[in-house]
Amino acid sequence: MRVKDVKKVVLAYSGGLDTSVILKWLQTTYRCEVVTFTADLGQGEELGPARDKALLLGIKPENIFMDDLRETFVRDFVFPMFRANALYEGMYLLGTSIARPLIAQRQIEIAEQVGADAVAHGATGKGNDQVRFELSYYALKPDIKIIAPWREWELTSRTRLIEFAEAHQIPIAKDKRGEAPFSVDANLLHSSSEGKILEEPWDAPDEIVWQRTIAPMDAPDRVTEITIEFERGDAVGINGERLSPAALLTKLNALGKENGIGRLDLVENRFVGMKSRGCYETPGGTILYVAHRAMESITLDREAAHLKDSLMPRYAELIYNGFWFAPERRMLQALVDESQKSVTGTVRLKLYKGNTIVTGRQSPHSLYSMKHVTFEDDQGAYDQFDAQGFIKLNALRLRLGAMAGRRGGAL
Amino acid sequence: MRVKDVKKVVLAYSGGLDTSVILKWLQTTYRCEVVTFTADLGQGEELGPARDKALLLGIKPENIFMDDLRETFVRDFVFPMFRANALYEGMYLLGTSIARPLIAQRQIEIAEQVGADAVAHGATGKGNDQVRFELSYYALKPDIKIIAPWREWELTSRTRLIEFAEAHQIPIAKDKRGEAPFSVDANLLHSSSEGKILEEPWDAPDEIVWQRTIAPMDAPDRVTEITIEFERGDAVGINGERLSPAALLTKLNALGKENGIGRLDLVENRFVGMKSRGCYETPGGTILYVAHRAMESITLDREAAHLKDSLMPRYAELIYNGFWFAPERRMLQALVDESQKSVTGTVRLKLYKGNTIVTGRQSPHSLYSMKHVTFEDDQGAYDQFDAQGFIKLNALRLRLGAMAGRRGGAL
Amino acid sequence: MRVKDVKKVVLAYSGGLDTSVILKWLQTTYRCEVVTFTADLGQGEELGPARDKALLLGIKPENIFMDDLRETFVRDFVFPMFRANALYEGMYLLGTSIARPLIAQRQIEIAEQVGADAVAHGATGKGNDQVRFELSYYALKPDIKIIAPWREWELTSRTRLIEFAEAHQIPIAKDKRGEAPFSVDANLLHSSSEGKILEEPWDAPDEIVWQRTIAPMDAPDRVTEITIEFERGDAVGINGERLSPAALLTKLNALGKENGIGRLDLVENRFVGMKSRGCYETPGGTILYVAHRAMESITLDREAAHLKDSLMPRYAELIYNGFWFAPERRMLQALVDESQKSVTGTVRLKLYKGNTIVTGRQSPHSLYSMKHVTFEDDQGAYDQFDAQGFIKLNALRLRLGAMAGRRGGAL
Amino acid sequence: MRVKDVKKVVLAYSGGLDTSVILKWLQTTYRCEVVTFTADLGQGEELGPARDKALLLGIKPENIFMDDLRETFVRDFVFPMFRANALYEGMYLLGTSIARPLIAQRQIEIAEQVGADAVAHGATGKGNDQVRFELSYYALKPDIKIIAPWREWELTSRTRLIEFAEAHQIPIAKDKRGEAPFSVDANLLHSSSEGKILEEPWDAPDEIVWQRTIAPMDAPDRVTEITIEFERGDAVGINGERLSPAALLTKLNALGKENGIGRLDLVENRFVGMKSRGCYETPGGTILYVAHRAMESITLDREAAHLKDSLMPRYAELIYNGFWFAPERRMLQALVDESQKSVTGTVRLKLYKGNTIVTGRQSPHSLYSMKHVTFEDDQGAYDQFDAQGFIKLNALRLRLGAMAGRRGGAL
Repeated sequence: MRVKDVKKVVLAYSGGLDTSVILKWLQTTYRCEVVTFTADLGQGEELGPARDKALLLGIKPENIFMDDLRETFVRDFVFPMFRANALYEGMYLLGTSIARPLIAQRQIEIAEQVGADAVAHGATGKGNDQVRFELSYYALKPDIKIIAPWREWELTSRTRLIEFAEAHQIPIAKDKRGEAPFSVDANLLHSSSEGKILEEPWDAPDEIVWQRTIAPMDAPDRVTEITIEFERGDAVGINGERLSPAALLTKLNALGKENGIGRLDLVENRFVGMKSRGCYETPGGTILYVAHRAMESITLDREAAHLKDSLMPRYAELIYNGFWFAPERRMLQALVDESQKSVTGTVRLKLYKGNTIVTGRQSPHSLYSMKHVTFEDDQGAYDQFDAQGFIKLNALRLRLGAMAGRRGGAL
Repeated sequence: MRVKDVKKVVLAYSGGLDTSVILKWLQTTYRCEVVTFTADLGQGEELGPARDKALLLGIKPENIFMDDLRETFVRDFVFPMFRANALYEGMYLLGTSIARPLIAQRQIEIAEQVGADAVAHGATGKGNDQVRFELSYYALKPDIKIIAPWREWELTSRTRLIEFAEAHQIPIAKDKRGEAPFSVDANLLHSSSEGKILEEPWDAPDEIVWQRTIAPMDAPDRVTEITIEFERGDAVGINGERLSPAALLTKLNALGKENGIGRLDLVENRFVGMKSRGCYETPGGTILYVAHRAMESITLDREAAHLKDSLMPRYAELIYNGFWFAPERRMLQALVDESQKSVTGTVRLKLYKGNTIVTGRQSPHSLYSMKHVTFEDDQGAYDQFDAQGFIKLNALRLRLGAMAGRRGGAL
Repeated sequence: MRVKDVKKVVLAYSGGLDTSVILKWLQTTYRCEVVTFTADLGQGEELGPARDKALLLGIKPENIFMDDLRETFVRDFVFPMFRANALYEGMYLLGTSIARPLIAQRQIEIAEQVGADAVAHGATGKGNDQVRFELSYYALKPDIKIIAPWREWELTSRTRLIEFAEAHQIPIAKDKRGEAPFSVDANLLHSSSEGKILEEPWDAPDEIVWQRTIAPMDAPDRVTEITIEFERGDAVGINGERLSPAALLTKLNALGKENGIGRLDLVENRFVGMKSRGCYETPGGTILYVAHRAMESITLDREAAHLKDSLMPRYAELIYNGFWFAPERRMLQALVDESQKSVTGTVRLKLYKGNTIVTGRQSPHSLYSMKHVTFEDDQGAYDQFDAQGFIKLNALRLRLGAMAGRRGGAL
Repeated sequence: MRVKDVKKVVLAYSGGLDTSVILKWLQTTYRCEVVTFTADLGQGEELGPARDKALLLGIKPENIFMDDLRETFVRDFVFPMFRANALYEGMYLLGTSIARPLIAQRQIEIAEQVGADAVAHGATGKGNDQVRFELSYYALKPDIKIIAPWREWELTSRTRLIEFAEAHQIPIAKDKRGEAPFSVDANLLHSSSEGKILEEPWDAPDEIVWQRTIAPMDAPDRVTEITIEFERGDAVGINGERLSPAALLTKLNALGKENGIGRLDLVENRFVGMKSRGCYETPGGTILYVAHRAMESITLDREAAHLKDSLMPRYAELIYNGFWFAPERRMLQALVDESQKSVTGTVRLKLYKGNTIVTGRQSPHSLYSMKHVTFEDDQGAYDQFDAQGFIKLNALRLRLGAMAGRRGGAL
């Protein structure tokens, strides 16, 4: 980005040291007006201090935007994703990935509102988040200018960053002077930790890494039993109490945390081409994932479920890579949402020291037919003789193959 | 099957009451020679009593076949399947499904050896196992005759079965007189329980259902740490000790059992069109699944891994449905096996009260590059500026769409 | 089906000899009331004679149902399928498959209207049509009784069929006394021929097989140029003239026929497990397929198009196998339909002796950007330097692989 | 690339004006030793003049590499791709895409042989070819330096290019002074034309664009009948005459050309994010594609064929995008190759004015069973009654759904 090109920029601003340095660097480098946007996505920090700091750094009050996006986040991003049972690389519940498009969307809305011609974010040049932010920006406003300071500036060491902060009177909390031993991202769905002391994949993560959950070993030695109620694919209540999306996830997080549920130590493949190691805590999301699958197990038709499962890896990859606002994600979402119309009912679970154990599921739309499945006399619901024709025609191509010399499915 | 058509039949014979009744029923109904085949697949029962009982029921010694197939089972069936990380419906490790083709294969081999024109099995007409047996029979010997007594006979109640047994001097163990409260299948990979008291999916399974594992709640409150060594996709050792496939799985089963690992209570979709509820115990397999994924996480290329993941549901479905000996399974296996050439190394795990926790992975073929991923100065291994072009070209189609009026990926 | 069980049956009745025999056979065998349903799907036959014949065979006037379903057929079945570019086994436009669910749906509607407890069709026991009819019946009315005479009766030779007809005073057209040299199905989308003289796949089909198209060799040696107008994925006009769905397909059929377009001689795989050879004529559909793809080529986003393409084989298979009224078809349709919102515009084609040649496409929603693609100076629309970063990050995993000893993508 | 970094570069050199300018530009800009590599891939040009021109431009004889790669090209690249029936976006036979990895591979081999540290190509910064070349380079030699002059230099107009050529005594053919009206790539598989006069997708291509085929309208009004013989998925002969891969494709090209076969006018989606319009001529490849599908139609199992078809779009995309030397392409190739073991036999075709018409297929490994498919009495090969059980169990889930209130596959 050429320096003279930018008039006004909307910065995704956390109030922390790094984005405060970015704020000042934007002012001094681009000499443009800076608008800050700080969102409450459930990361567990007050927004007030961010406002104070923005003011201190010279941002005009009308240029400070703060939003509580927790309900939007869960209702319009987390829940649609959970309808798909999305797991990246078989394991990861995509807690960081799913928050980025929402932040980007709000930045663009603000940019249009205040007439800004640029947006900026604090993600580094090696990670996935830069991609997620910028693909979203471009998809929503194709002529937007994007500033990614970590890819541009010269503040490539902690020392230089601190020097810059001191030179510009940016307050530095005592514990931020040194390098953090790892990097953290958090929102209502999860916390992630990566980098530095976590870089060696043979070393177990130190216990200090985990901030959102008790270890299974430290969780109480008692079972907590809960029910989760679903409507059309989304969780709507816990233990019979109806809750808003964010309230529900908050409560599941508390339940997961105290029962040591939702930790994941993973080496994953980034979109930018390298492997990285992350430690994720998704306490409520882990419970929700298990419960949603159990709810689907009695309400979804077999082929509907298998079709969803076959497309899930693609869907998860899209979200991980930052393509939330892409046509193919919308098409897959249409398919997934179509499947959820009858995913209504109740799941009962036991939570215990890291385990989420399904103990019951029921639904007014259940496809489970005790009459058909029973080992007892089914009074003619199912004619066992049908199985013979079913098998014989399924076998026909295999038999014709074997007759043609290709035994056992040889090609 | 017309009664007069069968000369000699090879029966999959367990020595239990049901297959003993089948044995006698075959003799009396088809008036054909009966050959029994009893396999040790690690179900945890001695083969001797089955031989004695077959002799007692009038089977000629040369018509009694007994095989210890445990190594074959794990090496040629379980391990290839685990290379694919196969999970049916996102959860089930396919313990019963994977054993059927091996039993069928051996029955057909024996049929060809002894000149039998038919085979028989003891699976019911509502389940998947009949399909798995018979598809395998037909694929291996297309002109084989198949007798499925449960679909043919009149012994449709327990009372009539017992009467038939008594009428034919078949010994009945005391505890077999009444109905079993549920039905069990077991082999070295797992135990499954289903039917009767398990038929209501809202009711939690009674603790007596679980035979192969301690409950997480009953497992000792201490961590067991182990390593598993892999070569080309297969586990070859535990804690540095090299083990044969069956010995390795046996040891993992013991480790899983005592740590409460591997229980699953699932409503699944059968190939024959109904939903059913099963309780599965796969102690060693659960550990192996987690470890194999962790091994792949540092040794598989991203797109190789994603391609595998996208095909896994199809592969698992094939095995569940009984298509082990089908061309499409062989094609997928070729793809999967091609991917495993460098899946070699060691994974470290903590086992604790139902949890299998990865704490480290290392490999001589690791694709994890600390030099690239590091938050520290990478000395030029990765040029952050490349990310800009990468993002911009990935965004181009989205920007062109937005310019054409389709913001945010609208279609 | 037990004979005494049926009270009233709705028969898919064409008025031809075979279904007339079925009609009478139902009356004599099941001693039930017969309701006939005859549909105009564009097969090119008048419905009047079928009514006369039904009356002659003793059907009460209120039990004779006749419908012109041509518009419904094209609008609600053919067009949705063409949105998906469905080709079975890479070649077949599914002309027979797509008509069956509509006939079945109407039969069930009539059954509910007249209080019939059964339906009957004239499809044989070896083909796909029985499956398509019956899956549709069951999906729409799960307790319906189904009679499939060709699987039940003893009239297994032509001679016996004729004898039965004569014995029951069924009029027999002179040219129907002998065996037809092949079997035909026709509707507004296509004609298919199979069986008898077509059974040897090494023999070219005799010219008499083709009834719906001129041979390319016989087509006039001149080019016909047309335009087809599309809206939201469906064709709505030809040469600027707006046409109803059926009128449009009728006109395309005429254009295709006279230009020798739309013949296909194929060996395909039936759902019931065998291969069969069919000769298909889909003159208008072939033109429509080519035009629709061309329309999409400038209006669909790349990944939207690729996602559709990757799911098309599954979608086509579902329709071929008879799963139109299945949840997974509805889910895929939701995905496909979502993609078609901007598939609006005009395609220009040359028709010439079997060839359908695209010569132009334009759209108000075109994503084709001459500014970006131009070999001329693009005035900064595209920064060629971005390509370097794009390539380098796409290459990163390959480079890391090669550095780890896996050159050229070795595994 | 920093100018001083390069010692010796291997240039993909055609002998034409553009790559001659590149040659000289490399010498003057990088002041490095230039090694030229010119391949005969069947583009229809002599290699001699390229050698002369390289000498004239000061390349040392030992630095001039010329290879006839036609057999390698067809055997190791074209044929493996045709085993997969690869069509990009449903239409394009990938003629340009498949040649790039071979050229890149040979450049890297030469670089290693002569100790070069860099390679260079003449592809532009907007196209796919740069990606295909560079991904291949990186995958084969991860530390190679890559020079892409079109992305780097200042010769952005034809005038400046000509000026540079004149200033450096590069001979300019008279017809190269002006701008070419479109850009061409050719090899034994195809010719492609794009750019300039072809950029408006509503305009039909001028006839001068087509260089490799006669128009269907100009082709002779007579049918040419041929047979193609296949072994294990590859064509090995024409009309009973065994031919090497390149000889076979050459002959098919001649047959296609004179019968007006293989033209395609397409708007496609480039990997770099834009749509482009190309005119492709693949005369022999089009015939081969149709013949290969016909050969598979009687030799491939249904599910093997469907699995291939479902993965084909992914495979084609990989090749189009330049990922020939990637693990996922190798995995898919393993799957595809596994399927081709019995794809052996003969296909008979009629070629006529743009049409390739299958008229017969036969194979020693045919899975087509006349005994099963026949409309005549099949003497018990197929029991029509089996169809009832087959249908009923396939319908069971749909019936259970309808009973639960979800008629017709509603969700």
